[in-house]
Amino acid sequence: MSHPEYNVKVIGIIKTEFETSENTPIQPGFSQSIGRAIIQSEYVSGLKSLNTFSHIYLIYWFHKAKSPILLVTPYLDNEQHGLFATRAPARPNPIGISIVQLIRIENDTIVFKGADMLNNTPLLDIKPFARIFDYRENVRDGWLSGRDTEKALADNRFEA
Amino acid sequence: MSHPEYNVKVIGIIKTEFETSENTPIQPGFSQSIGRAIIQSEYVSGLKSLNTFSHIYLIYWFHKAKSPILLVTPYLDNEQHGLFATRAPARPNPIGISIVQLIRIENDTIVFKGADMLNNTPLLDIKPFARIFDYRENVRDGWLSGRDTEKALADNRFEA
Repeated sequence: MSHPEYNVKVIGIIKTEFETSENTPIQPGFSQSIGRAIIQSEYVSGLKSLNTFSHIYLIYWFHKAKSPILLVTPYLDNEQHGLFATRAPARPNPIGISIVQLIRIENDTIVFKGADMLNNTPLLDIKPFARIFDYRENVRDGWLSGRDTEKALADNRFEA
Repeated sequence: MSHPEYNVKVIGIIKTEFETSENTPIQPGFSQSIGRAIIQSEYVSGLKSLNTFSHIYLIYWFHKAKSPILLVTPYLDNEQHGLFATRAPARPNPIGISIVQLIRIENDTIVFKGADMLNNTPLLDIKPFARIFDYRENVRDGWLSGRDTEKALADNRFEA
């Protein structure tokens, strides 16, 4: 297949306390850590009304991720799964999505709870999280069902 | 700021019944339409175990989106909101995220319910949707609260 090339633009930088993946929470829902997303000035006007939401999606680039491996042993299991059945960061497109709690917006800075990304992660997009869009009935959590997720922290297995 | 350039790879193509945005559902949760994501052969092994999940994220490129406008009037309101407080497709990075119901996987093809993207949309990533990762307590839906979302269909306002 031949395709046009799509380039992503960095619209901001995410500041967190995590300098390496070791001991970084593997998911934002298990993190109490405060982070800051600093938006480039040209995009700040796009934040209007965002503060009416309690939670937002941060969409970012896993800038430290290794090359993808299509069968991986994720943090929460001892068995191999297909990469697309996991949230491992080493992906063909290393795009990360975190649902975080919005604390406040100060000029160009979004302060949030639930940091699970490395310091200086490039931000690509922000979307509002909303129950009317993002909840589903009869969800089956697949191989993740019953995993002890609360205490899970990352190691360096997916980091370059 | 100077940044390395990040390019996205097209890992597959999403086939739907929607050739133009007019009358396309604005969200997958309001769509009963069946779609197919056809994965490039080199990535098919990464689908292992994905069929244990009832719902998945499809992450894709809004290939028909207009240039972004930072203040927009979205489908569900008459007031302007910041682009990042909406799901409008015309974004600095036109990355779309749809939570769809997985029906079955046949070789290189994921059959799903909840199509809300245009036919031939380039697919960038697939992630498992899981309550243990993706549900939050005390969610406030912001300006979307109480909007009559069920019947909403798109027009061409965000399409090139």
